[in-house]
Amino acid sequence: MTHKIAILGASGYTGAELVRLIAQHPNLEIVALSAERKAGMTMAQVFPHLRHMTLPSLCKISEIDFSEVDLCFCALPHKTSQEVIRDLPKSLKIVDLSADFRLRDAAEYEKWYGNSHAALEQQGEAVYGLTEFYREDIRNARLVAGTGCNAATGQFVLRPLIAAGVIDLDNIILDLICAVSGAGRSLKENLLHAELSEGYNAYAVGGTHRHLGEFDQEFSKIAGRPVQVQFTPHLVPANRGILATTYVRGDAQEIYDALCAAYADEPFIEMLPFGEAPSTHHVRGSNFCHIGVTADRIAGRAIVIGALDNLTKGSSGQALQNANLMLGEPETQGLMMAPLFP
Amino acid sequence: MTHKIAILGASGYTGAELVRLIAQHPNLEIVALSAERKAGMTMAQVFPHLRHMTLPSLCKISEIDFSEVDLCFCALPHKTSQEVIRDLPKSLKIVDLSADFRLRDAAEYEKWYGNSHAALEQQGEAVYGLTEFYREDIRNARLVAGTGCNAATGQFVLRPLIAAGVIDLDNIILDLICAVSGAGRSLKENLLHAELSEGYNAYAVGGTHRHLGEFDQEFSKIAGRPVQVQFTPHLVPANRGILATTYVRGDAQEIYDALCAAYADEPFIEMLPFGEAPSTHHVRGSNFCHIGVTADRIAGRAIVIGALDNLTKGSSGQALQNANLMLGEPETQGLMMAPLFP
Amino acid sequence: MTHKIAILGASGYTGAELVRLIAQHPNLEIVALSAERKAGMTMAQVFPHLRHMTLPSLCKISEIDFSEVDLCFCALPHKTSQEVIRDLPKSLKIVDLSADFRLRDAAEYEKWYGNSHAALEQQGEAVYGLTEFYREDIRNARLVAGTGCNAATGQFVLRPLIAAGVIDLDNIILDLICAVSGAGRSLKENLLHAELSEGYNAYAVGGTHRHLGEFDQEFSKIAGRPVQVQFTPHLVPANRGILATTYVRGDAQEIYDALCAAYADEPFIEMLPFGEAPSTHHVRGSNFCHIGVTADRIAGRAIVIGALDNLTKGSSGQALQNANLMLGEPETQGLMMAPLFP
Amino acid sequence: MTHKIAILGASGYTGAELVRLIAQHPNLEIVALSAERKAGMTMAQVFPHLRHMTLPSLCKISEIDFSEVDLCFCALPHKTSQEVIRDLPKSLKIVDLSADFRLRDAAEYEKWYGNSHAALEQQGEAVYGLTEFYREDIRNARLVAGTGCNAATGQFVLRPLIAAGVIDLDNIILDLICAVSGAGRSLKENLLHAELSEGYNAYAVGGTHRHLGEFDQEFSKIAGRPVQVQFTPHLVPANRGILATTYVRGDAQEIYDALCAAYADEPFIEMLPFGEAPSTHHVRGSNFCHIGVTADRIAGRAIVIGALDNLTKGSSGQALQNANLMLGEPETQGLMMAPLFP
Repeated sequence: MTHKIAILGASGYTGAELVRLIAQHPNLEIVALSAERKAGMTMAQVFPHLRHMTLPSLCKISEIDFSEVDLCFCALPHKTSQEVIRDLPKSLKIVDLSADFRLRDAAEYEKWYGNSHAALEQQGEAVYGLTEFYREDIRNARLVAGTGCNAATGQFVLRPLIAAGVIDLDNIILDLICAVSGAGRSLKENLLHAELSEGYNAYAVGGTHRHLGEFDQEFSKIAGRPVQVQFTPHLVPANRGILATTYVRGDAQEIYDALCAAYADEPFIEMLPFGEAPSTHHVRGSNFCHIGVTADRIAGRAIVIGALDNLTKGSSGQALQNANLMLGEPETQGLMMAPLFP
Repeated sequence: MTHKIAILGASGYTGAELVRLIAQHPNLEIVALSAERKAGMTMAQVFPHLRHMTLPSLCKISEIDFSEVDLCFCALPHKTSQEVIRDLPKSLKIVDLSADFRLRDAAEYEKWYGNSHAALEQQGEAVYGLTEFYREDIRNARLVAGTGCNAATGQFVLRPLIAAGVIDLDNIILDLICAVSGAGRSLKENLLHAELSEGYNAYAVGGTHRHLGEFDQEFSKIAGRPVQVQFTPHLVPANRGILATTYVRGDAQEIYDALCAAYADEPFIEMLPFGEAPSTHHVRGSNFCHIGVTADRIAGRAIVIGALDNLTKGSSGQALQNANLMLGEPETQGLMMAPLFP
Repeated sequence: MTHKIAILGASGYTGAELVRLIAQHPNLEIVALSAERKAGMTMAQVFPHLRHMTLPSLCKISEIDFSEVDLCFCALPHKTSQEVIRDLPKSLKIVDLSADFRLRDAAEYEKWYGNSHAALEQQGEAVYGLTEFYREDIRNARLVAGTGCNAATGQFVLRPLIAAGVIDLDNIILDLICAVSGAGRSLKENLLHAELSEGYNAYAVGGTHRHLGEFDQEFSKIAGRPVQVQFTPHLVPANRGILATTYVRGDAQEIYDALCAAYADEPFIEMLPFGEAPSTHHVRGSNFCHIGVTADRIAGRAIVIGALDNLTKGSSGQALQNANLMLGEPETQGLMMAPLFP
Repeated sequence: MTHKIAILGASGYTGAELVRLIAQHPNLEIVALSAERKAGMTMAQVFPHLRHMTLPSLCKISEIDFSEVDLCFCALPHKTSQEVIRDLPKSLKIVDLSADFRLRDAAEYEKWYGNSHAALEQQGEAVYGLTEFYREDIRNARLVAGTGCNAATGQFVLRPLIAAGVIDLDNIILDLICAVSGAGRSLKENLLHAELSEGYNAYAVGGTHRHLGEFDQEFSKIAGRPVQVQFTPHLVPANRGILATTYVRGDAQEIYDALCAAYADEPFIEMLPFGEAPSTHHVRGSNFCHIGVTADRIAGRAIVIGALDNLTKGSSGQALQNANLMLGEPETQGLMMAPLFP
């Protein structure tokens, strides 16, 4: 059975990544691709790497007949997404890749994003899209909110540890190294090749990155009490990848065992042998997440490191994984491609 | 029906790329992976990006039971390959990725490679593996010699023009820009990140690159008289991709028409609109080749540019395409994945 | 004696590069830095790598007292530059880094740049700034027009060959590989790290690049008859560098000798041993240009390759070299720093 | 007055960097360059970027007449260095860039480096080369031990905080991002462009990196009691740069004030405005170190970040700074060049 798919915001990186992934999926058919400012263009003009595919031309959202769509991916900018989704048919299955429906609490949303939410009804309805932890809810959801890519990486590393009670909740540091595609196709000086290549820096230092809203929400929920982590993202000259180096307190072996237990049956989460560290080189272009645990020389401390591809497992791959659940497809359908190395 | 596959030389880049591609193929099963110096190790230890796959451990060639193998890919170094293939079962289907069986003439082989050929019988039997031009021969071949990656790119651009008689045969310049994975996993100073990134240079300048042996052989055969091209490869800081900028004399529109006619039914060769230039960005990780034609401001001259991924269409993808033909599989099986961008 | 220097357009890459170079110059003092849209900001805010220097804050051009300026570098965008320079004091020494005064013929200017020239008087007065070939004119000039960076590279390779009559004037191909800083700090999708890194392509194919105007003007002048070259620039993932691979017809040894003779006394042009090819790796951040000559396997053809740093020798370094001449300073003052490698 | 300089181990990156820096120094003359395996070659053959300089050819150490040398830089591999220095004239001024004389305690040396020290006498004599903190000792030293590049970066950030007593000594995390030139010119698979570019990973996780020996020694000495930090280095695709993101506990403003006070008169240490984060982009190729302090959202915690160029301030620039002191030259001589950006 073929499911009819629309992608809103198809001229950005996550939109293009969705098309790349769906190209490998036997049961999904793309029937509509929107991009307001590029409406009328072909996908090959906007993304020449998709030239070989037969795809609908880009259109405006208003031109889409949603009655013929089984599931709609929204890869629109934050804030725009909530306004668009608010006005879509109430019965349409939606996987949103923006930040708009990740936070359940309207006040928290406003605190981190600076504006009041324009689609409170849908916000209440949305299911948080971290598949491995919300699988059953997602299966029955109408609207799934894709997680932040940094937020996904940090949670893969930390959720099982908080749930198992094997780490000190007041001493968690999440030090992330992020590739540039996470910033999207936006035109900013610091994203130019000439300014980004050959150097690196931290940004949003001190606890100002918006993905902290997700960490606070999810970690506190699991712990049953407020949990705040320290979180510093760094931008390095690479296109895909997030590496989360996490400093925690607890017994390294217990930590490792908790992660192994949590992910024993997960098709996309790979636990490395104890003492090994993962690399973003080994997940590029794939839906896999690699996790490693090492004991520190200081007793009672451990370093847990996770690696994934921000555009795939961190965003569009996660979105397709969720869509598979929502459509009754096998969860891994279209997602088992091996990473690209070198 | 499942075909049993062995890969000799699985610890190099083309070996790993074969595994990546075969992972997407529904009817191939890898039963043996060899790597003499790394025998005993798992593939995950040598290539952690393949960690999620269930694969045989690396072994020595002597440990493989070839009676259980339907087709063998040889991704061994030049010169080693001929010695190994000479001693393999005479009935075994083989796709060789080395340079050892590309040149039909033993003297030409010795001229370009500096040693006498150790497997003359197999050299006589081998079919040149440029699928789009030797398709029927490959279908019936036992031993197929994969082309050089530069040689493939140059031929995709030039063969139809020579065949159609639309260019001056004495004024052909092939200016190539190559990514570093074409040099393999060899440990040389100029391949270190610190030495390669941020700069670029020509090498093998003046007609000394070995792939000229293939150009001479193939172009002269098509033309029915000796043809010599000028060929300058350049090494730039990127991992995958070959861009062939070809300077030819002839009518640009006739040139374009000849290419369009030649590739009208080819699944992997994409002709760009007249006047557009391809980019290696748009073929990365895929089996596609993009070709563009532009008229020069000087009448009677044209620039024809081709782009492909050296590890896929230039090497392991071509090898799988050929194996599909030899095994009676659909030619595109396992090869239609979209490029990775960004 | 200290010369007082103003830099107009100090918020771009060539402006910053001028500051970097002048920092090493014992006799130049920067008294004014303009940037219309960033007026009021400090240089450290715009270019934190210059944080350690004591520099005037950015201002508007209208705020500069030019009576206190000995020499003014104009690093403004094309077209803006001519309008600004037209209205500057008629006695002020100026080195312009834009394209506005490179072409002597107003019709040629309009043909390549698409607009009529707004400062015809100054256009007539300007001296072409390729130091090695216009040294005496520059010494006495009031207004010097810095060359295009590609144009400089191609001319270093070809001018002595045309002048010496050792190459066929109707068969010259200039195949260039360019780094991205040549495109300036402009915000375009194809200049983003995510879109540029890991791939490459030709652009302005077929004879449409504006620097052809300079090639046509200069080569025809030397030859005493019209000369048209073929010129294809390529953009690769690197920040600094131009590599000009030039295909010419003539005797390689005569070509080499002509270049060695022309550059025997030049402090910044380095001839490599015959048969060696230069690399942009070896000129990065310096004012040097490396040139190599190789004979092709086809008799009567040669490949001549030049390499320089587009921001230094191709632009701001050339500008300072010219300013030194105009101010009576030693020509190499502030410019002998070694390249940065790795 | 001209000082005569020898560089042992001139075929590595730190050797080449010394030559680059000395090229700008008015009072140093290079009289000998050694490289055992490349003896007889010219520097231009080994490092073509130094082609324009007049330099002695590479020789064996045994060929150097040290009676004509005023100061000798040793840029030899660890372990080799101690054996060579042991046998050099006892009166020769030496700046060693290896790890061999950094640790004062022979047992600590053996613990971290795995072999017993072969030059105990010199080990006892050596002065630790972190200029800003050992300036007077260095001025009078015969043998100075250059610090580790990671060790330098971490100490610039942390020493003043430990000395001022403004941070909790039991909660210090040093998370470093390092460029690849720190690994030297060694031929290892993970340093190849194809393996390093486009991805990143942590290494020596859990407290096994040898530079911890320096941190332990120095921090414990300042604190007057044992201090152990957590330290995780990461390798990213860039050639120069170390970014130290340090997580500490204390009042951010007090921390900032302590750093500002410590570095108020330092020519090479730049404090950023409170709340700003430095970038390795802005120190490339220079001897500067940029430091920024930010308060975390969790009260009582701060993030202190330092950035420098590992080959310059982290190694060869530091070495020249020390040599200046030992030779009675101004400390900043030859070292004030601005960073290269972009």
